[in-house]
Amino acid sequence: MHQFVDGEWVSEYEATDEDGSFQRQPTSFRDRVDPDEAEAGRYHLYVSYACPWAHRTLIARKLLGLEEVISVDVVDPFRAEGGWQFTPDKDGCTVDSVNGVDYLREAYVEVDPNYTGRVTVPVLWDTVEDTIVNNESREVMRDLTTAFAELGNGVDLAPEELREEIDETLDRIYEPINNGVYRTGFADTQAAYDEAVTELFDALDHWDSVLESQRYLVGDRLTEADIAMYTTLVRFDEVYHTHFMCNRTLIREFDTLWPYLRDLYTTPGFGETTNMAHIKEHYYTTHPDVSPKRIVPIGPGPDFEAPHDRDELPGQPPVR
Amino acid sequence: MHQFVDGEWVSEYEATDEDGSFQRQPTSFRDRVDPDEAEAGRYHLYVSYACPWAHRTLIARKLLGLEEVISVDVVDPFRAEGGWQFTPDKDGCTVDSVNGVDYLREAYVEVDPNYTGRVTVPVLWDTVEDTIVNNESREVMRDLTTAFAELGNGVDLAPEELREEIDETLDRIYEPINNGVYRTGFADTQAAYDEAVTELFDALDHWDSVLESQRYLVGDRLTEADIAMYTTLVRFDEVYHTHFMCNRTLIREFDTLWPYLRDLYTTPGFGETTNMAHIKEHYYTTHPDVSPKRIVPIGPGPDFEAPHDRDELPGQPPVR
Repeated sequence: MHQFVDGEWVSEYEATDEDGSFQRQPTSFRDRVDPDEAEAGRYHLYVSYACPWAHRTLIARKLLGLEEVISVDVVDPFRAEGGWQFTPDKDGCTVDSVNGVDYLREAYVEVDPNYTGRVTVPVLWDTVEDTIVNNESREVMRDLTTAFAELGNGVDLAPEELREEIDETLDRIYEPINNGVYRTGFADTQAAYDEAVTELFDALDHWDSVLESQRYLVGDRLTEADIAMYTTLVRFDEVYHTHFMCNRTLIREFDTLWPYLRDLYTTPGFGETTNMAHIKEHYYTTHPDVSPKRIVPIGPGPDFEAPHDRDELPGQPPVR
Repeated sequence: MHQFVDGEWVSEYEATDEDGSFQRQPTSFRDRVDPDEAEAGRYHLYVSYACPWAHRTLIARKLLGLEEVISVDVVDPFRAEGGWQFTPDKDGCTVDSVNGVDYLREAYVEVDPNYTGRVTVPVLWDTVEDTIVNNESREVMRDLTTAFAELGNGVDLAPEELREEIDETLDRIYEPINNGVYRTGFADTQAAYDEAVTELFDALDHWDSVLESQRYLVGDRLTEADIAMYTTLVRFDEVYHTHFMCNRTLIREFDTLWPYLRDLYTTPGFGETTNMAHIKEHYYTTHPDVSPKRIVPIGPGPDFEAPHDRDELPGQPPVR
């Protein structure tokens, strides 16, 4: 895999440690948006529809009614040697409307010529300061929820009185589930795989049970925690089960997680930002160390729009 | 992959044609057992528990009561550069009790020093003539059923009056299903994959429907056709779905194929010859062009012994 080392684009990057465990590099740009500086047209998102981290910000932007406030460019789901690329001729992809570059890495080095690290999405870009504000999905999502609150539709995805529980839940699902599917699929040893896949399904079993009696992860309010869970779950049967060998159980075989996922999918903002063609193309063609033939499999195409009875539980999706 | 070319063990073997479609080489030894020469102790089987073709002969041997008539040696499920190997210290594996070689390929060149082709299982070996009789699973299975009929328990897996239909069924399931999972998994192009996986699931849909109203593939008699179907189906959810990306539908999601598979699994001769540890180790560690990390996944471990209601249909398993 490629990354920058002191501004040089090199292929040295090793994703696993000596035990064969996948180690995700920390994100590099961690500034936050000052609510006083939040204004329509100033901030921009670079995303991939394929990426579950970027997908979080797309959903939040929709739910919060920020489509006219924050613009979006979409990279090619196939990530080759040059990293994320703008290929506007491809279905669902766009140009870089802000910096006009061909590769997202060019925008990174414009900000920091000596940048060291991976070039990832999402990126929240400030068109006034011409810089990357933040490329950590959780913080971008939180900024959208809070710093842009006055510019949106009034929906609150992290209400003050629930914020501690939301943050605890985001913490709790990150390592075993959101990052866990990657730790499972990128593990280079049987021991690293076994540990990651066991933690993953233990966690899924736990939340399958929790969600029996409550509609959303922190109770009867849809929050950022549900967005974070959704972007992993919606990719699970199509990608993680096969490509990353997370194959103990399909999400569509879970008694509660499956209707929970359908409930979210059919909530405005979720299904409409889910581009399964981009998702499947990205994973199966971009990781030759996992799927060397770069063939996109046929299935399984779960019916995300099948009826569910989650609306019998207390709570409603946010109104827009 | 390795094979012999004029007795030389080489790695030149290319499994796909220029369109990226998997091409299975024909088997090389196609003699048949003369019923007059069938006797207890003369013939021997080399098998791998992992291999669906070899598995056919193990099931037939059990169903026909030939355990004391035909001896068996079992190779290591991990097939490395040297091909199938005898590693008696490994669980479920044996020495070569007939020829005393370390690699099965040594027995092949003893028979033909200029042998050209792959070294495969099953092998039916004649200890009197010191030669390979046959390494084509369908013919070995038929010889066990017919040439050894007098030496077994009286079960007939290919009754004369059904034989034409059995042969038609064996023909009909071979290309899309038995070989189809390999054509899907080894396809080198998207087009070759798409064609193979579509044929595979069209055929599974067809038989899922046929088996709604009849207990076995040719009606109310368990025959060689069911054995051939079984050795593919029992590997499907554990291996073919993930490893070969046959991921439209799991067998455990089919309305009829799934109870049909459980019916067979719990029929004496089937489950007891199914060594899932060998099956999983073989596929996931032996095909680095498909699963380069050589990691054996956790799941899914379908419950093959869950109750089924197939015995409400006419027909009984063969009595031993």
